[in-house]
Amino acid sequence: MTVRYEHSDEPRLRFVVLTLFPDLIRDAFSWGMTGRAMADGLLSLDTVNIRDYPVNAYGSIDDEPYGGGAGMLMMCEPVRKAYEEGLRRLERKSPRVIYMDPGGERLTEEKALELSKEEGFIILCGHYEGIDERVLLEVATDRISIGDYVLTGGELPALVLMDAVSRLVPGVLHNEESAMDESFGHGLLEYPQYTRPRQWHGMEVPQELLSGDHKKVSQYREREARRRTQAVRPDLYEKYLRDRGIW
Amino acid sequence: MTVRYEHSDEPRLRFVVLTLFPDLIRDAFSWGMTGRAMADGLLSLDTVNIRDYPVNAYGSIDDEPYGGGAGMLMMCEPVRKAYEEGLRRLERKSPRVIYMDPGGERLTEEKALELSKEEGFIILCGHYEGIDERVLLEVATDRISIGDYVLTGGELPALVLMDAVSRLVPGVLHNEESAMDESFGHGLLEYPQYTRPRQWHGMEVPQELLSGDHKKVSQYREREARRRTQAVRPDLYEKYLRDRGIW
Repeated sequence: MTVRYEHSDEPRLRFVVLTLFPDLIRDAFSWGMTGRAMADGLLSLDTVNIRDYPVNAYGSIDDEPYGGGAGMLMMCEPVRKAYEEGLRRLERKSPRVIYMDPGGERLTEEKALELSKEEGFIILCGHYEGIDERVLLEVATDRISIGDYVLTGGELPALVLMDAVSRLVPGVLHNEESAMDESFGHGLLEYPQYTRPRQWHGMEVPQELLSGDHKKVSQYREREARRRTQAVRPDLYEKYLRDRGIW
Repeated sequence: MTVRYEHSDEPRLRFVVLTLFPDLIRDAFSWGMTGRAMADGLLSLDTVNIRDYPVNAYGSIDDEPYGGGAGMLMMCEPVRKAYEEGLRRLERKSPRVIYMDPGGERLTEEKALELSKEEGFIILCGHYEGIDERVLLEVATDRISIGDYVLTGGELPALVLMDAVSRLVPGVLHNEESAMDESFGHGLLEYPQYTRPRQWHGMEVPQELLSGDHKKVSQYREREARRRTQAVRPDLYEKYLRDRGIW
């Protein structure tokens, strides 16, 4: 079924990103699906450069951490002022403010779906060693991690979050089916897929997929998705079984 | 301790990325730490555009999946040919070929550290609904997922992987300490950090961090890191205790 989405001039979801690298955010977001959705007026992106709010005439926005240690921390005041500018740009009362934080809760497909229902939110990207805790306590409503690894800044995590959320906004994917019929949509990893030619380097497309029998196709896919999930991600497989009361 | 790294003209780590969006990869990688490390000759990046290897005169590189379903799949032959070009560019025998795959093993800090010791590797980015399974069986040595959520392509995951790995390559971070003294380095989330001023919006920097007593500072940080990990990520905290034989 093809559903057409009528939309006004107002985007369905507005992102405002507070960052030291606004050009990286804007350039990367302008590619592919998210770029097309902006051109269609479904998404909008605004950036605020934290560097525009220094604490002195030398342009300082960071300082050494109390208690010592490597690297520099972003100070409260530049982040607070960038946040206030972000609020003005977003024009929403009490929006969610998401700090991209390796110490935050992990991003999941459910979380992306929840965020896709917002009208807009602010994303705060740290850099260097991080941000003074006090301004985070004051402005951040959510702290989200994209995974258990360390990166040099919050910019790539912000782009990952925006991509995961954007594709779940109605109308952004041109084929509505594909938003859910994938990994994690049903709690399993995706089954292997094949396209033409039928034979390639001595490898055949599985018979079930050529059968034209919808039941065989879906049995094959379910079986392979379960097999793969059990092998690669036993943690997900246990959750899948538990959620269905099989465990 | 400051360590100086001598290096020859040869980069320590070479990335070759097979993608439909080479400009996105190159633009985003040229920012911040990875851009600086390329300028310093420590890292190199090469991209191969899969679209340069179509199967016909119309420029096709994708086709519908056997068995039906939404979206298009990348075909074996364009991916195989891009892989062969990638091998030529990398000039390494049997390099690792990493397919960015939501159905792969999850990226961890340990995995990033392992990959940072390679001389170079190839990263394959899918787009659309994915890639024909047969060419993946043929070329991919690793399948890595950055997290349990769905994205529109492998490009952002590739950038995340490259960032996580690059910062662990000796010499890339200018201060060697900061590579490990962070989240996951010790199996705990990072403690809260503070910088000047001492008082901001009525919030004080914790006394221990102002004491000038290294023991008090490290006790404070350890305690806060444990508290935060236990609260936000009980799974990590259990692992931390088990790894130390406390559990």
